[in-house]
Amino acid sequence: MSTIPASHLDLLERPLFGHLGTVKADGAPQVTPVWFQWDGEFLSFTTSTQRAKYRHMEKNPAVALSVNDPEQPYRYLEVRGTVERMEPDTDGDFFFVLAERYGPAIDRGGLDDAPYRVKVVVRPSHCTKQ
Amino acid sequence: MSTIPASHLDLLERPLFGHLGTVKADGAPQVTPVWFQWDGEFLSFTTSTQRAKYRHMEKNPAVALSVNDPEQPYRYLEVRGTVERMEPDTDGDFFFVLAERYGPAIDRGGLDDAPYRVKVVVRPSHCTKQ
Repeated sequence: MSTIPASHLDLLERPLFGHLGTVKADGAPQVTPVWFQWDGEFLSFTTSTQRAKYRHMEKNPAVALSVNDPEQPYRYLEVRGTVERMEPDTDGDFFFVLAERYGPAIDRGGLDDAPYRVKVVVRPSHCTKQ
Repeated sequence: MSTIPASHLDLLERPLFGHLGTVKADGAPQVTPVWFQWDGEFLSFTTSTQRAKYRHMEKNPAVALSVNDPEQPYRYLEVRGTVERMEPDTDGDFFFVLAERYGPAIDRGGLDDAPYRVKVVVRPSHCTKQ
């Protein structure tokens, strides 16, 4: 049974940008836009082991994702959860799954950090919405 | 001298939604969409003393705001900073400054929690951008 409210599921199914919050070692938040995928059980992102976000999640697996509706910006969903695992994506397979989902604006030759790519898999625990 | 890069200043000047990250007492992040105002020195938000976000910022004044460009979603600005002060806004004056900035979709009679409203004033310390 999903924790995602049916009324706001479209915000995860549409290729909208999410704003992902992680927490730094010093206890301060970081928030940046991300691509994501929702499979009915897990939220997945791509990042790289060279990014601050990766280091934050290694130390503190708690994350939150905020998505609002471009057509009705007051309508939003926040998903909080925990990083279940981070899997190597060194051939970029998952990166290109997301690139495909987010459309033709991506330069397919533009993945220059494939050796460092990871797929981050998050188990949602709680949602807030409006 | 501002920490905000001139190349991305428009993302603070346009009435775009920001996604505000705070950190809960248990060290997990919270991220939700907010209205904000940039005055050249401080980022200001409205919240209420009844909200989780207020309690988080009382205990941990570190925040981060992520804004992306609706016309070019890969273009974004993240502003990190510290809550300098939270001022009572019990007549809703600042709330309506923001309501005006974000346009006519707001029901001016809809502020039913004015007694609990606060203006949150954040001093930026660092930005990331793309």
